Amino acid sequence: MFNFTFNIPTIIYFGKGQIKALGQELGKRAKKILIVIGRESVKKYGIFDDVVREVKKAEVSFVELSGVKPNPRLKSVYEGIEICRKEKVGFILAVGGGSVIDASKAIAAGVRYEGDVWDFFTKGVACTDALPVGTVLTLAATGSEMNRHAVITKEDTRRKLAFSSNSVKPVFSILDPEYTYSVNKYHTAAGVADIMSHVFEEYFSQPPSAAVQDRIAEALLKVCIHYGPVVCKKPRGYEARANILWAGSLALNGLLGEGKCGDWASHAIEHEVSAVYDISHGAGLAIIVPNWMKSVLNKGTLNKFVEYGVNVWGIEKKKRETEIARAAIDKTRDFFSSLGLPSRLSEVGITGEHFGDMAKNTIESLGEIGTFKKLSGKDIVEILNMSL
Amino acid sequence: MFNFTFNIPTIIYFGKGQIKALGQELGKRAKKILIVIGRESVKKYGIFDDVVREVKKAEVSFVELSGVKPNPRLKSVYEGIEICRKEKVGFILAVGGGSVIDASKAIAAGVRYEGDVWDFFTKGVACTDALPVGTVLTLAATGSEMNRHAVITKEDTRRKLAFSSNSVKPVFSILDPEYTYSVNKYHTAAGVADIMSHVFEEYFSQPPSAAVQDRIAEALLKVCIHYGPVVCKKPRGYEARANILWAGSLALNGLLGEGKCGDWASHAIEHEVSAVYDISHGAGLAIIVPNWMKSVLNKGTLNKFVEYGVNVWGIEKKKRETEIARAAIDKTRDFFSSLGLPSRLSEVGITGEHFGDMAKNTIESLGEIGTFKKLSGKDIVEILNMSL
Repeated sequence: MFNFTFNIPTIIYFGKGQIKALGQELGKRAKKILIVIGRESVKKYGIFDDVVREVKKAEVSFVELSGVKPNPRLKSVYEGIEICRKEKVGFILAVGGGSVIDASKAIAAGVRYEGDVWDFFTKGVACTDALPVGTVLTLAATGSEMNRHAVITKEDTRRKLAFSSNSVKPVFSILDPEYTYSVNKYHTAAGVADIMSHVFEEYFSQPPSAAVQDRIAEALLKVCIHYGPVVCKKPRGYEARANILWAGSLALNGLLGEGKCGDWASHAIEHEVSAVYDISHGAGLAIIVPNWMKSVLNKGTLNKFVEYGVNVWGIEKKKRETEIARAAIDKTRDFFSSLGLPSRLSEVGITGEHFGDMAKNTIESLGEIGTFKKLSGKDIVEILNMSL
Repeated sequence: MFNFTFNIPTIIYFGKGQIKALGQELGKRAKKILIVIGRESVKKYGIFDDVVREVKKAEVSFVELSGVKPNPRLKSVYEGIEICRKEKVGFILAVGGGSVIDASKAIAAGVRYEGDVWDFFTKGVACTDALPVGTVLTLAATGSEMNRHAVITKEDTRRKLAFSSNSVKPVFSILDPEYTYSVNKYHTAAGVADIMSHVFEEYFSQPPSAAVQDRIAEALLKVCIHYGPVVCKKPRGYEARANILWAGSLALNGLLGEGKCGDWASHAIEHEVSAVYDISHGAGLAIIVPNWMKSVLNKGTLNKFVEYGVNVWGIEKKKRETEIARAAIDKTRDFFSSLGLPSRLSEVGITGEHFGDMAKNTIESLGEIGTFKKLSGKDIVEILNMSL
């Protein structure tokens, strides 16, 4: 286990009706807030009304930024920063999924920075001050509601990049499983794939084994494998939605990643894909991850795949090690397929024409990627071709 | 899963040499601190020197309270409060295990309370303000380094009671696995039993199943079962010490307990035992827990014991359910024995003469205990007799 610092100050209000905690949290923090939302679904399903009712009860005024898209755009971030400055907003409330939260974090960081907020993503400028952010989560997937990361896409150059700062950790997040009831089957499934891929990035990494982190990783994978099909089939089942929602937050709040050095190659590759083709992040991962697994399986990584196959999928220990590893990878791909997710890029209309550029872009901004196994540009193209 | 609020603001510095973080943490918080220690071992093994070096580097002055005993006494708490008031101390640094940390928390709560600090334990008075506390942990067991609880014994009346407050959550905790190298085999084993019993209290509880919490509980139990014998055999093995240490913090920081309503009957019973007989808490639990399990196993609780047997001990699913449950309980007791811990109260010199009073005391202060299965005074006496 590597040395680490672990700190999650976010207060989580988890469960049905927890929106009632919103007023007191806002009341003590700001007089005027920016509410950030995505598409109209939060209004359609009454979540926005719940939020506004609590905001008004707390005698807090608000301005609104709506229309934040999946794979959130830098343009929305600029827009939000301008509103915050003009309206003298003291707090940002993200009501939505990962895209809305990530945009809100970037806005929060940008408001108190004199330069271009994109510097945090491209120039390694450290963000040490930001407006406080809170979230009302409506999709189980991101983990952003409990961590220091944000991913933003610059539309004109098609770059999708991440930045991290302790200053943008949400001060509170409200997680009501019932708020995820209206998510359709496809996005629910993509969310489950996203959660599992976050676990994989921390599990298949360096050092190959850190027992506490890895046994907990397996625990969360088992929850996803058990409840993933249930939430897709019965969207209004509380227990299943609750378990997937909480698994999503724990998958990326440091619990699995601290003490290890995450791999994140699949995410780097998928970010290039969704920056260029704007597909759903979770669906992209469902395609890329099993092919990444195939690509990195070798003598050195075999043990970890065996551990994965036996502990997560219950494959019999007695079998040959390579057989266990291959079966585990097949089971991963088949599981995503069983949720109705694509298993090939061609299924979502992607051809191979930009693969070379995508790999080049990735290597240019990140260098070689991966810790579990380092990947060159050539390896990235190979994985993309395997995924076609 | 029940509704819950989850919040762990404690900053954890985990790993070898992390004592270096102490100076900066103290420097920004106080000019004068109280360092609380237990027996002389922290001085003997150089940990106290490391602490003092960092304290001095940060130009923070300190006073010292030493001699805090296992099953910490209210007397030490009063003493600490007096020192803090007299010396105008702004911060309390606990250097030790659970007893030292719990005493420090009680001191922190008492300093800013006009009445008797024992009110927090007996009268349900809410503690809403306390001196900030930090910890340097030297024993894997308590979980106190990352939570809101403290347990104190009033010597003259032999009452061992708990109180909880968000105000006493440590602001930081330094967890260096090498600082636990000098813990002897018996106390190491008792620590492992303590950690596992914390997990059991949350796992065997209401609702009987909350998948995320329960799969993580099983994960931590597997870590203890794997590394427990290793730390007892090879006290200076870093990886094993690190995993047990981190498992101990996660076992009682809310991760397993929030969303469930913990049982805590075994702890209530053991607290009576160690209040009267002053035995090691972990050793007491190693005796009580398997007998508690036997006592609460019935048709209604069978499923959970089967889940435990299959998921934690790898007992074959095909066997009869009662067989799996009984085997799981036997394996639990045998595991504690294999670590060199006692399995009967008579082994540690305890006779049955006070059992009636102990049960009466428990029921008087707590009412019926347990959530997984409610226990009356008669049930408590039965479990104590089974443990004799």
